Amino acid sequence: MSGHVLALSGGVGGAKLAAGLAAVLPPGQLTIAVNTGDDFEHLGLTVCPDIDSVVYALAGLNDTVRGWGVVDESWRAMEMLGRLGEAQWFNLGDRDLAMHVARSWRLRAGESLSDVTARLTGALGIAHRVVPMSDAPVRTQVETAEGWLDFQHYFVREQCRPVARAIRFAGTPGAAPSPGLAEALARPDLAAVVLCPSNPFLSVDPILAVDGVREQLAALSVPFVAVSPLVGGKAIKGPLAKLLGELGRTCDNRAIATHYAGLVEHLIIDESDRAEAEGLRAMGLCATITGTVMCDAEDRERLARVALSAARYGTG
Amino acid sequence: MSGHVLALSGGVGGAKLAAGLAAVLPPGQLTIAVNTGDDFEHLGLTVCPDIDSVVYALAGLNDTVRGWGVVDESWRAMEMLGRLGEAQWFNLGDRDLAMHVARSWRLRAGESLSDVTARLTGALGIAHRVVPMSDAPVRTQVETAEGWLDFQHYFVREQCRPVARAIRFAGTPGAAPSPGLAEALARPDLAAVVLCPSNPFLSVDPILAVDGVREQLAALSVPFVAVSPLVGGKAIKGPLAKLLGELGRTCDNRAIATHYAGLVEHLIIDESDRAEAEGLRAMGLCATITGTVMCDAEDRERLARVALSAARYGTG
Repeated sequence: MSGHVLALSGGVGGAKLAAGLAAVLPPGQLTIAVNTGDDFEHLGLTVCPDIDSVVYALAGLNDTVRGWGVVDESWRAMEMLGRLGEAQWFNLGDRDLAMHVARSWRLRAGESLSDVTARLTGALGIAHRVVPMSDAPVRTQVETAEGWLDFQHYFVREQCRPVARAIRFAGTPGAAPSPGLAEALARPDLAAVVLCPSNPFLSVDPILAVDGVREQLAALSVPFVAVSPLVGGKAIKGPLAKLLGELGRTCDNRAIATHYAGLVEHLIIDESDRAEAEGLRAMGLCATITGTVMCDAEDRERLARVALSAARYGTG
Repeated sequence: MSGHVLALSGGVGGAKLAAGLAAVLPPGQLTIAVNTGDDFEHLGLTVCPDIDSVVYALAGLNDTVRGWGVVDESWRAMEMLGRLGEAQWFNLGDRDLAMHVARSWRLRAGESLSDVTARLTGALGIAHRVVPMSDAPVRTQVETAEGWLDFQHYFVREQCRPVARAIRFAGTPGAAPSPGLAEALARPDLAAVVLCPSNPFLSVDPILAVDGVREQLAALSVPFVAVSPLVGGKAIKGPLAKLLGELGRTCDNRAIATHYAGLVEHLIIDESDRAEAEGLRAMGLCATITGTVMCDAEDRERLARVALSAARYGTG
């Protein structure tokens, strides 16, 4: 079976699987819709961390050692910004800064985020469609004892230290799906939806909060497969385990499955969480057990094939 | 004699003398008003080449080998901007880019160019006052066979190749002097005005075109000394000699003196143009002959002292 695949992705972890899917699917058969709830304005620049993580991963420009940002990065502009008294809490590498400059001036000139993203991915030789979840600004905010924090203030400046009480997505409702996401959702040849291993609360929920997206996904009759972001009951990176506790959930795949109830029908979990498979099946889900840690291109492509196979999608 | 000194400066050549003046005068006794006719918007950033040349020179950050920009510069962001398909004709070093980012977001947030310049010079430890000629945008344009070109398009993109027919300063009249320039012009203790060795047409005329500045300078009763930008009948850098010919002037200090008639009373010319001194004196000007090429700090300070001495200003 073939047809079109819609992947929903957040940042680093999701971007790895997105790159794996791009490696095994031809450009015309994949749309990667990316969370933009992390986007923010910093030093006059529009920074889109999750789009950039996906773009860098697909262009082979991602730094696999540091785990984020561009490979072979330098920090000369950042050092100078520090000398000039500007905020230092959000690191901007020189190559990464170029991306933000290129994006920001074109957004300010009136291009949509979809147009700018298509232009930048095209310039970097990315043939697959990478689209923002929405062209309207959506901003994830986390409620803490100090009040509502903008996402990057919570995530980067405060290093996720404050206890999260709630999460909201400013701009929703009212943010329409981007043309690329809307088109993918409406395709008659849509054959599968793959939820990349991203934080359900911080990276996937913003996508589901875009006008009509959750409802359209729930109404689809095609397989909907998620790769769990947990490995051994922990998140490889990021605050997911801490958040699950703070939001009163257990830190296991049952919590992930419960969170996606009514959407996801097949959860791919890591070998280290093998013991949870029975419980998931008891919930009525399909569960596939495999290694979900992606260290290199081979891992990414293998996991992409497992996800597509779980969606009963043939990759030849 | 002491009192306050007002220096008017364009970019690189002027910046050298401005740095010399800053080295021999205490911070409270010098205001450096800088041409902003070269300023332009590029990739969403407000670039102020002449202010930056002065700032880098005063902070000891100027690249003396390349002759412009920041020392120890790198070009990582620029390379990436090229990969992203952005314009390459205006070089932005990584450290220089930080300056433009810091300036641009604060301008966009509503700070004046004077405020931003004070903030950035303060952060770099510059104690002397460096002020834009105006906080209102003034944009130098050059008329060529192709029509009016924005200054940086003429100067950098076209490398001054088109024949110049005329020069205008968009935004004048209507651009008020910056608070710092207005204050310096009105100081009761103003003791001298020094015109740094900058291009009269492209770097000094914009300052004189700011509302009331030419008239106020002409009405001052304090010495007004100019250091000629010509050395051996040529400009050390830039299109001055070519421009003089295109605008129907001779390429000599007589043309410079004629251009500043009614303002400058004392012209400092290079030793290699010694033969022109008599003619200048016959025009009613004072003329001082000295080496005007500034290769190092010693040259800059010596020439600053010569200029102040020509203005009958004692530097102890």
